[in-house]
Amino acid sequence: MARIKVGVLGATGSVGQRFVQLLEDHPWFEFGALFASERSVGKRYREVAKWFLPSEMPEEAAEMVIRSMEDIGASDSDDDIRIMFSALPGQVASNVEKRCAEAGYVVCSNVSVHRMEKDIPLVIPEVNADHLALIEVQQSIRGWDGFIITNPNCSAIMLTLSLKPLMRFGIQGVQVSTMQAVSGAGYAGVPSMAILDNVIPFIEREEDKMESETLKLLGTLEGSAITNAPFTVCASCHRVMVMDGHTEAVWVTFEEPVGVDEVKQAFRDFRSDFKTPFAPEKPIILREERDRPQPKLDRDAGKGMSVSVGRVRDGRMKNAIKYIALGHNTIRGAAGASILNAEVLLQRGYV
Amino acid sequence: MARIKVGVLGATGSVGQRFVQLLEDHPWFEFGALFASERSVGKRYREVAKWFLPSEMPEEAAEMVIRSMEDIGASDSDDDIRIMFSALPGQVASNVEKRCAEAGYVVCSNVSVHRMEKDIPLVIPEVNADHLALIEVQQSIRGWDGFIITNPNCSAIMLTLSLKPLMRFGIQGVQVSTMQAVSGAGYAGVPSMAILDNVIPFIEREEDKMESETLKLLGTLEGSAITNAPFTVCASCHRVMVMDGHTEAVWVTFEEPVGVDEVKQAFRDFRSDFKTPFAPEKPIILREERDRPQPKLDRDAGKGMSVSVGRVRDGRMKNAIKYIALGHNTIRGAAGASILNAEVLLQRGYV
Amino acid sequence: MARIKVGVLGATGSVGQRFVQLLEDHPWFEFGALFASERSVGKRYREVAKWFLPSEMPEEAAEMVIRSMEDIGASDSDDDIRIMFSALPGQVASNVEKRCAEAGYVVCSNVSVHRMEKDIPLVIPEVNADHLALIEVQQSIRGWDGFIITNPNCSAIMLTLSLKPLMRFGIQGVQVSTMQAVSGAGYAGVPSMAILDNVIPFIEREEDKMESETLKLLGTLEGSAITNAPFTVCASCHRVMVMDGHTEAVWVTFEEPVGVDEVKQAFRDFRSDFKTPFAPEKPIILREERDRPQPKLDRDAGKGMSVSVGRVRDGRMKNAIKYIALGHNTIRGAAGASILNAEVLLQRGYV
Amino acid sequence: MARIKVGVLGATGSVGQRFVQLLEDHPWFEFGALFASERSVGKRYREVAKWFLPSEMPEEAAEMVIRSMEDIGASDSDDDIRIMFSALPGQVASNVEKRCAEAGYVVCSNVSVHRMEKDIPLVIPEVNADHLALIEVQQSIRGWDGFIITNPNCSAIMLTLSLKPLMRFGIQGVQVSTMQAVSGAGYAGVPSMAILDNVIPFIEREEDKMESETLKLLGTLEGSAITNAPFTVCASCHRVMVMDGHTEAVWVTFEEPVGVDEVKQAFRDFRSDFKTPFAPEKPIILREERDRPQPKLDRDAGKGMSVSVGRVRDGRMKNAIKYIALGHNTIRGAAGASILNAEVLLQRGYV
Repeated sequence: MARIKVGVLGATGSVGQRFVQLLEDHPWFEFGALFASERSVGKRYREVAKWFLPSEMPEEAAEMVIRSMEDIGASDSDDDIRIMFSALPGQVASNVEKRCAEAGYVVCSNVSVHRMEKDIPLVIPEVNADHLALIEVQQSIRGWDGFIITNPNCSAIMLTLSLKPLMRFGIQGVQVSTMQAVSGAGYAGVPSMAILDNVIPFIEREEDKMESETLKLLGTLEGSAITNAPFTVCASCHRVMVMDGHTEAVWVTFEEPVGVDEVKQAFRDFRSDFKTPFAPEKPIILREERDRPQPKLDRDAGKGMSVSVGRVRDGRMKNAIKYIALGHNTIRGAAGASILNAEVLLQRGYV
Repeated sequence: MARIKVGVLGATGSVGQRFVQLLEDHPWFEFGALFASERSVGKRYREVAKWFLPSEMPEEAAEMVIRSMEDIGASDSDDDIRIMFSALPGQVASNVEKRCAEAGYVVCSNVSVHRMEKDIPLVIPEVNADHLALIEVQQSIRGWDGFIITNPNCSAIMLTLSLKPLMRFGIQGVQVSTMQAVSGAGYAGVPSMAILDNVIPFIEREEDKMESETLKLLGTLEGSAITNAPFTVCASCHRVMVMDGHTEAVWVTFEEPVGVDEVKQAFRDFRSDFKTPFAPEKPIILREERDRPQPKLDRDAGKGMSVSVGRVRDGRMKNAIKYIALGHNTIRGAAGASILNAEVLLQRGYV
Repeated sequence: MARIKVGVLGATGSVGQRFVQLLEDHPWFEFGALFASERSVGKRYREVAKWFLPSEMPEEAAEMVIRSMEDIGASDSDDDIRIMFSALPGQVASNVEKRCAEAGYVVCSNVSVHRMEKDIPLVIPEVNADHLALIEVQQSIRGWDGFIITNPNCSAIMLTLSLKPLMRFGIQGVQVSTMQAVSGAGYAGVPSMAILDNVIPFIEREEDKMESETLKLLGTLEGSAITNAPFTVCASCHRVMVMDGHTEAVWVTFEEPVGVDEVKQAFRDFRSDFKTPFAPEKPIILREERDRPQPKLDRDAGKGMSVSVGRVRDGRMKNAIKYIALGHNTIRGAAGASILNAEVLLQRGYV
Repeated sequence: MARIKVGVLGATGSVGQRFVQLLEDHPWFEFGALFASERSVGKRYREVAKWFLPSEMPEEAAEMVIRSMEDIGASDSDDDIRIMFSALPGQVASNVEKRCAEAGYVVCSNVSVHRMEKDIPLVIPEVNADHLALIEVQQSIRGWDGFIITNPNCSAIMLTLSLKPLMRFGIQGVQVSTMQAVSGAGYAGVPSMAILDNVIPFIEREEDKMESETLKLLGTLEGSAITNAPFTVCASCHRVMVMDGHTEAVWVTFEEPVGVDEVKQAFRDFRSDFKTPFAPEKPIILREERDRPQPKLDRDAGKGMSVSVGRVRDGRMKNAIKYIALGHNTIRGAAGASILNAEVLLQRGYV
C-alpha cells in the first residue's frame, strides 16, 4: 500500500515537533509538507526548528522546506497531501483549519478552537469512534469537501479514557485534581523561574476544557447531534515540575454502590475494537503497586499511548471511588492522539 | 520574665532542626537540653547534626552536649526543663513521651503516635484550643504529673485551618488532593532519583491521617470526650518536587448553597483570639490573584505560620466550593505548630 | 539626613524587581520614580510588574505610577532624583543611560553595554574603588554633568572578589568553570523544558564577559586609564537547575608556589575599608566543611552580599590552587552590586 | 552460538538494575544467576528489587531466585556461569570478587576496589584493550583460574575516551570540572532535600579516582606492568540535579600548539577497531551546535554508549584547548562499560 502524504501545520512548535518525531517511519503515512509561520517559510526544517526532543530530528523532515499556510487552498495547489495534522497556536488555527477543510483536506487537529462546535467530532477512538458520523453532518452543513476532526485537551484525554469503562456503572459526578507536566504549555510556556521548587495552581482555560470536553466525548450521538453525558465534571488544574506526563487524582461518584474490585476489573478488561499502528494493545494499564502510576515510570507505557491507572480505592463519599490516572501529555495527549484519529479515519474509509 | 527551659527530643532530624532553628531567641523559651539517639549522646550538637537549613546553626544550640533520653524520669534528674518538644521517629516516640509526661514534663509532640488517643488533645490553637480541657482528663486517667499534647500531621493542619471558618456554613463532606513537599518525609526520606521529573502518588499513612485527624480537630468537646465532626474527609496524597510547602486542592460540600463570596469573606474575617510570639496576625491569608497561592511565593507568609488560600470558586457539584490551600509544612505544619501549642499552654496557665 | 531620591530604569524585569525589593526601607535612598517600557507607562507598578520574589511587593513602590524614559532629560524635568539604577535590557540601555548622565543624573548600571568603555568605571568597591577616579575623566571627555558607573557581570563578581586577596601572591592565570542559576537569565530566560533534568553548557557572551571584565576590575589606574591585570582568565560557563546562586570551580596558577593555608588565610583576612548599609561585614566567607559552599545554604550569606569560598586545595598543576566560589547572582551579582556602588559614591562625595 | 551464562553480583542496587536491564536479550549472554545481600537470598528478584528504571523489569530476571554470594566457590558449585558482573558496594566487593576469580569465574567489575592494583586491568576497550595482557600476569601471580578486570569510574570514562584521540598531540596537563548526575550515587545516595535547587561541590573520592584512573588507562603496557601516562589530571567534581548523564568541562594543555580544528577532526575520526553488540559505531560524537552536548539530549546517544563532545574552543592558556564532554553515567559509565569489557574478552578468546 502506498503511504498517504500528510502535512503538519505548525511543525516547529512543541506539539509540532512531536508530530514530526512520531510520523517518522509511520507505516501508513509519509511527510508531504511541513508548514510554519511566515518567517520560517522557504527555509529548511533543520534551520528553523529548535529541536528539543532527545531523539535526533528525522532526516527526511530535516531537509524539507517549510511551506506557507497562506497558499493552502489556492487554486493552483496541486500537492497530493490528504491529511493535515494541526498543531497551530489557537489564534491562527481557526482560519487555516477551515481553509484546509474547504480545500478538501482531512484535518486532524490537536487545537482547542473547534473542539466544542456541534458538527465537529471530538474523538478518542477507544471512547467514541461512532461520533465520526458527524463528519457527514459537518460536510453537509458547511459545504466542505474535506472536514475537521479534533482530539481533546491532553488532561481530558487521560481522564476520559479512564472513565469510559466505568460508564456502565452509572456515573453521577467526577472530580479531578491534576498535576500537569511543563511540556503541556509549549517550549517556552513555563519559565524555570516560575516552576523550580514550586507548584502553579492555575492553567489558563484548562479546567473549563476538562469540564466540557469530557462530557462531549462521553456523550451519545443521537441523529445528527451529540447529547452530552448526563453528569458533572469538576476540575482543579495544577502545574508541577515534571517534563512529560500528566497525573490526575480522580473521584468518581456512581449512582449505585460500586466496589473497588469491580472498577479494577473494568479497567483490566478494557480493550479497543480496532488495530492500527498507534493503537496501544492496552489503552488502559492497571498498576497494582501502591505507589504507581508515576510520570517517570509510566508515561511511556504503550509507546506513550496507554493511560496507566492505579491506587483504586474507596472514595469514602457515598458511592464514590478514587484512583490515579496518568498519561503522556504530548503523545497520547496531543500528537499521538491526532495520529491515532487519522489512522482510524483511514481504516474506516473516511480518507 | 525568666524564660522557660525547653528540651527537644530528636533534635538532629529534619523536624528537630526546625525546632532548634525556630526556638533560637524565642522570647519565652530557652534551650534546656537537646536529646538524640544514643550514638549521638555526649557529643556536641554541632558535631552530630548534619545541618541543612539555609540559616546558620544557632550558636547556643551548637555547643550543647546531646543528652540521653534513657535518663529522662530517672530519680536523680534535677534539670529545670518544663516543656519537651518531640520530633522523635514514631517507633521510639511513644515510650519516651509517656516517660516524660510521667516525670512531670509538658510534652508538645509533633509525632503521630498519640494523636488519636481519646484523652490526648490534638490541637491547632486557632481551631480548637478548648480541647486543652482534655489535659485534666488525661492526668486523672493516667496519673501523670505532666501531660502530652499533640499537633496534627502537616497536611491536616493546612486543611483544617482552612475549614475552620467554613464550619458555620454546615460542612457535609471534604475532598482534598495534596501536592506535598519533600521535606515532609525527613532529610533522607525522598531520594532525588525517586522524585526528579516525577510525582509520587502515595505517601505512607498520609491519607488516613488527614481523614481522621481533621475530624477530631473540628470535633466538639462534650464532657470529657471529643465527638468527631459529623462529616467525611477523603484525601488523595501526592509528593511533588518542592522543598517546602504543601499545596492542597480542596472541595467542600455544604448542606446548603454557599456562595464564593461568602467563603472568601469567611476566610478574610478569620482571626485568632490570642496573641503569642508564633501566632500569625492572620492565620489565613486570602490571595485574590488567579494563580496563587504558590509554595515558593506563599509558604513563608506570617513567618511560615499563616495558611494561604486562593482560587475560591464554584465546586460545580451540588452546594460545593473548591479552593487551594497552602502552608509551610515544617513550620506551620510541624515544629512551629508545636511551639505555638506550647505558647498557648503557657499563656493559659497549663505550664 | 534626608534620604536621596533614586530611580529604577527597567523596574519590572527580573533585576528591576530585585532593585525595588532591596531599596525598600534603604536608610540612605528612597524611591523617586520607577521607569519601564512604554506599554507600562502611566500604570501603577502593582499592575504591570508580575512580581515573582517571595517577599511581598513593597507597598510604596506598588503604588508608584510608571514613568516614561523618553522624558528623561527633557527641559521641563524637575524631579529631584539624583541616582538612576539601571536594569535595562542591553539594546535600550545605552541611549537611556547616556541621556541620564547628560541630564546630570548619576547612573549606577548593572547593564553590560558600557562596562568595557575606557572612561567608564567598572567597580566592585572592595576590589577597585580607586577606579572611581575615572569619573572625572569621563565627565571631562563627554561633557556630562552626571556620569555612569557600572558593576560587572554576575559571574565575574564572584570570581573577582575571590581573586582580589590572592593578587599579592602574583597570579599567572585563572580558569573557571561555572554552574549558574536560572535567575541570571531573567524571568523568561530559561524555559523549564530546557533545564529540567539538564545542564546547558552555554550562556551567551558569558565567557567573554568573565574573561574581560575580571582583568579590568583587577587592573590598575595609571593616570587617566586602566591597565588590565597582566594575566589570562579562561571561563567555561554552564547553566544548571538552581534558582539563585552561581557556583564557580576556580583554578589559579601563581608565579611562585603558594600553599593552601596561605590562600585560606588570605580569604579569612580579607576586609573592606568602608562601611555602608549594603557592605557585608565579610566580603568573603571561608567555609571549612568539605561540601560547602552550596547555593541553597550559602547564597544568602551577608544578606546575599558575601561571596563564600571553600574547598581550597592543591591545584596539582605547577603553582596552582583550586577552590569553589559562590555568590548570590541577583543580589551581590546584580542589583545589590549597583546599590553598593551607589552607597560608596555617596560616601565619597560623588553624589 | 549458545549464549554464555552470566551472573550479576549486587543485582538489586542502582547499577545492578542497569546490568539486569541491559543484559535482557543480549545476543551473547544470558542470565545464569542474580546475587544480592543475604536478606534477599531465596526470594524472587521481582520481590526484592525496588525497580526504578522506566522500562519494565525483564520477565526472565524477575522470576529468578536470588542466590547467596557465600556459596560462590564452594566445592559443590556446579553452575555453568562463566562471567560475573560486579556491582557490589565497595566494602564487600573485594572478597567476593577474589573468591569468584579463584573459583574460575571471569569477573567484569564496575567496583573501584581493585581498579588501581598493578596486575588488574582497568580497561575501556576503545582506549587500552592491549592492557588485557595483564590477565596472564594476574593469573600467574595470584594462581587463579579466573581473573578480574575492571572498568573505570563513570566520570573518568567520559574524560578518558575524549582524551584518547588527543594523545598523539602530546598532552601536558588536563583540568576537568564535572557536573554529575544523581544516579551516580545510587538510588538513595542523594536525598532530594540535598540537591533540589542546589549544587553540591563535593563527591566522595571522585576527584582522586578521576586523577589516578585516567593516567592508568592512558598508560602504556611495558612488559608486565603499566606505566602511567606522563601528565597530570586535576579534577573538581560537583553534583547537579540531573538524573543521568555527567557533563564535564575540560581543559587540555598540549606540549605544542594544537588548533581547534585539529582537535575537532581527531574527535570526528576516532573509531574503535572492533565490533560487538554494545560497541557504539561512534565512541565519540562531535556536536557542532553552540549549546551541546546536554545531558537530556545527548546521554542516550549510541544507546548510551557514545560520549558526546562539543564546544571545542581555544583554551586561552598556552597551548590549551577547552571543550565539553558528556556521557551516560550508568550505561557507558558503569554497567554498559562492564558488559562491553566482557564482549571484548569473549571476542578475544579470554572467556
